[in-house]
Amino acid sequence: MKISPISGFPEYLPAQRIVEQHFLDVIRETFELHGFPSIETRAVEPVERLLGKGGDTDKEIYGIRRLANAEDPAAVADAELGLHFDLTVPFARYVLENAGHLAFPFRRHQIQKVWRGERPQEGRYREFTQADIDVVDVGELAPHFEAEMPLVVAEVFRKLPIGRMVIQVNNRKIPEGFYRGIGIDDVAGTLRIVDKLDKIGPARVKDALVEAGRTPEQADQCLALASIRTEDLSFVERVRELGVEHPTLDEGLEALAAVISTGMQNAPGALVAELKIARGLDYYTGTVYETQLEGYESWGSFCSGGRYDSLASDGRTTYPGVGISIGVSRLLGLLLSQGLVTATRSTPAAVLVAVTDEESRGASQSVATALRARGIACEVAPKPAKFGKQIRYAERRGIPFVWFAGAAEGGGDQVKDIRSGAQVDADAAAWNPPAEDLHPRVLRTGDRGAEDAPQE
Amino acid sequence: MKISPISGFPEYLPAQRIVEQHFLDVIRETFELHGFPSIETRAVEPVERLLGKGGDTDKEIYGIRRLANAEDPAAVADAELGLHFDLTVPFARYVLENAGHLAFPFRRHQIQKVWRGERPQEGRYREFTQADIDVVDVGELAPHFEAEMPLVVAEVFRKLPIGRMVIQVNNRKIPEGFYRGIGIDDVAGTLRIVDKLDKIGPARVKDALVEAGRTPEQADQCLALASIRTEDLSFVERVRELGVEHPTLDEGLEALAAVISTGMQNAPGALVAELKIARGLDYYTGTVYETQLEGYESWGSFCSGGRYDSLASDGRTTYPGVGISIGVSRLLGLLLSQGLVTATRSTPAAVLVAVTDEESRGASQSVATALRARGIACEVAPKPAKFGKQIRYAERRGIPFVWFAGAAEGGGDQVKDIRSGAQVDADAAAWNPPAEDLHPRVLRTGDRGAEDAPQE
Repeated sequence: MKISPISGFPEYLPAQRIVEQHFLDVIRETFELHGFPSIETRAVEPVERLLGKGGDTDKEIYGIRRLANAEDPAAVADAELGLHFDLTVPFARYVLENAGHLAFPFRRHQIQKVWRGERPQEGRYREFTQADIDVVDVGELAPHFEAEMPLVVAEVFRKLPIGRMVIQVNNRKIPEGFYRGIGIDDVAGTLRIVDKLDKIGPARVKDALVEAGRTPEQADQCLALASIRTEDLSFVERVRELGVEHPTLDEGLEALAAVISTGMQNAPGALVAELKIARGLDYYTGTVYETQLEGYESWGSFCSGGRYDSLASDGRTTYPGVGISIGVSRLLGLLLSQGLVTATRSTPAAVLVAVTDEESRGASQSVATALRARGIACEVAPKPAKFGKQIRYAERRGIPFVWFAGAAEGGGDQVKDIRSGAQVDADAAAWNPPAEDLHPRVLRTGDRGAEDAPQE
Repeated sequence: MKISPISGFPEYLPAQRIVEQHFLDVIRETFELHGFPSIETRAVEPVERLLGKGGDTDKEIYGIRRLANAEDPAAVADAELGLHFDLTVPFARYVLENAGHLAFPFRRHQIQKVWRGERPQEGRYREFTQADIDVVDVGELAPHFEAEMPLVVAEVFRKLPIGRMVIQVNNRKIPEGFYRGIGIDDVAGTLRIVDKLDKIGPARVKDALVEAGRTPEQADQCLALASIRTEDLSFVERVRELGVEHPTLDEGLEALAAVISTGMQNAPGALVAELKIARGLDYYTGTVYETQLEGYESWGSFCSGGRYDSLASDGRTTYPGVGISIGVSRLLGLLLSQGLVTATRSTPAAVLVAVTDEESRGASQSVATALRARGIACEVAPKPAKFGKQIRYAERRGIPFVWFAGAAEGGGDQVKDIRSGAQVDADAAAWNPPAEDLHPRVLRTGDRGAEDAPQE
């Protein structure tokens, strides 16, 4: 049977997987520091739930069915299950299903694979990992949560070796109030056109707005609003200078100012007020988030979300919330394909314990057991080959140290740093590698060995 | 739409998920200490590969297919993909696909979900997590790896709060050589009957053996061999006392003695030589492993594996290996359903930072930022409610500490241990919780608070 990769289902070699694990570890650790417990939901949901109220089939769902006993009635029932295409639909269902066992406001993080039945196509993932945080409450959600979410992802991105990730924030009430204040009633239609700004530029957006019935003056005002981007609270004044008054605009400005202000205080430099961000037109009702990696803006947003009035509803109770989702696979796809990050080795092992002959393998194994008991990952050499060959075995995997039992005068052990060649006496019950060699590190390419390289 | 659990797809509440995460963390950390890097494979394989050479359909595979555009030729191609039902088939394919990029002997660990299209039935999982380690080499695999594998899982089980897990080891060459030595040619058929010992008892096994053509004397010898179980090397003598001679028996005894001896030296008390273990009749060729949780023997094996001569072959090259797989979901299913393990809280947060009023939320947020910068997980109270209510919010989630900004004389902060009620002055830049409160802990039920409780 021919073996070949399946388009859209990426897999990593061990060294790349170490990069991915580092990213997932940083994400989880940061989510937990901010008090978000983990949940996981099953991979499948009823297809009916995945399709949503409208039976919307453009979501490209993978259905599953038992291959055995296709005539079996139970197999037919399974045909109604599909793989989840995001983590929001399953989370909404989880909240409704377990509402009686959860404490509200309920915060959770969720890091899982999702699947989309896309046509095979360059750069389209059909299996990928997302990392979400959400807070939901019963009936009403306090607005301060909208300011807390970007602090969490700002901390994630600060800890990752990826350069500067800019979190762009807007509030849907700002364009809504502004448009209404200048006499535009079709808010959604106007937003939809302004949202094309990055793609088609201001001149063609203006043409499209006028064509859609806005006056040239209204179109200019819309473009003026969309051009505002500030790292501090000065966006408020910039909007005020446009001379538009509307209570919804006031609400939006106040809410966005609270978010930016919390960011300035707790994550300086991470957030910008970016008034052209629209995002998920039918869904979000307050703050919206997108992100851009500096220098790679054309790759689009790697992390998005916002505030929604109704994550879920069981008819009696409505659960409003705010959430943000990191597209882990998309981000790694960029970084790994462009060679922007690398792992210092392809194995967790910091030490290879050499073996002199099969008779003394037990002694080498005991060294390994002693090192592991103190948290030092190691492996015992597979063969009692010449030491030069055992050192090359370590070299090939990036293992920095090789241990020689009984090599010292008097019968003690020695350990060699195979990068420098330095070999010193050592005791398996006491020796430690330098802290930076204990675990594989993940570095921005070019940073390898640099003093300021990002560390775990 | 009615919401109800789907049979066979278990989901956990946050506190149960903390137990699962702890188990997965211990497993991964131990695998890494033993030098096994992680890989993940895609969830799907070509159905042809999942079915194997025989087109064997009793494996209960879930096929996947795109629901949209069912007439689309690309959708038809997708119909040939199925969800993996174990991690061995995908690992074998990964080795063949990436052989040119891997360094052999290649060791890896893999912790992922697998799916089986079982009929819905009490206790049958259709989605579950497995944790595997394997070592494969090109052409030949050194026998010492068979002794190393059980050391890894012995360390995992020693670190988990689950009581005593006994690793039962045998070598397929022992019954094979023994049977041949007493004139039995149908080794596989005999093993298959002896394998029923636990289910039907020795008398009925003897009847079945005689019915299958063995002499009563042969049957007695088979049962005598199967009854041997020792924690040390005395099994060799016990087998010798049965007076059977065969070169394959000698090989098997020597190999098993090496495994048990390595275990006695590096993981005392963890392994037993258990000569009735057969396991995977057509697949394993050397050492085989099973495990039993003391007191829960009837639940069967939670961790199994063995040595195989051909994990994969591309026609020219054969890859022999040895592997072992922990059934994480099955183990958690027992422990959680019987209430044998519990988490000390349902959130990672060690501290709830109280909020006096919305105006001073910024000050509480700054306390949280300072605590997090030193690795202390916390959340800021959702509402400036009465302090008693904020304390109850923490209590409900098991958060041990509540922080009051500005509560001390002179305007400093205070922190309250809500279990003891003790409230002391504290500085967010310096205070630390006791080490055992920093992260949620997972304990055997009954151990909560005990001095010797298992710790992370």
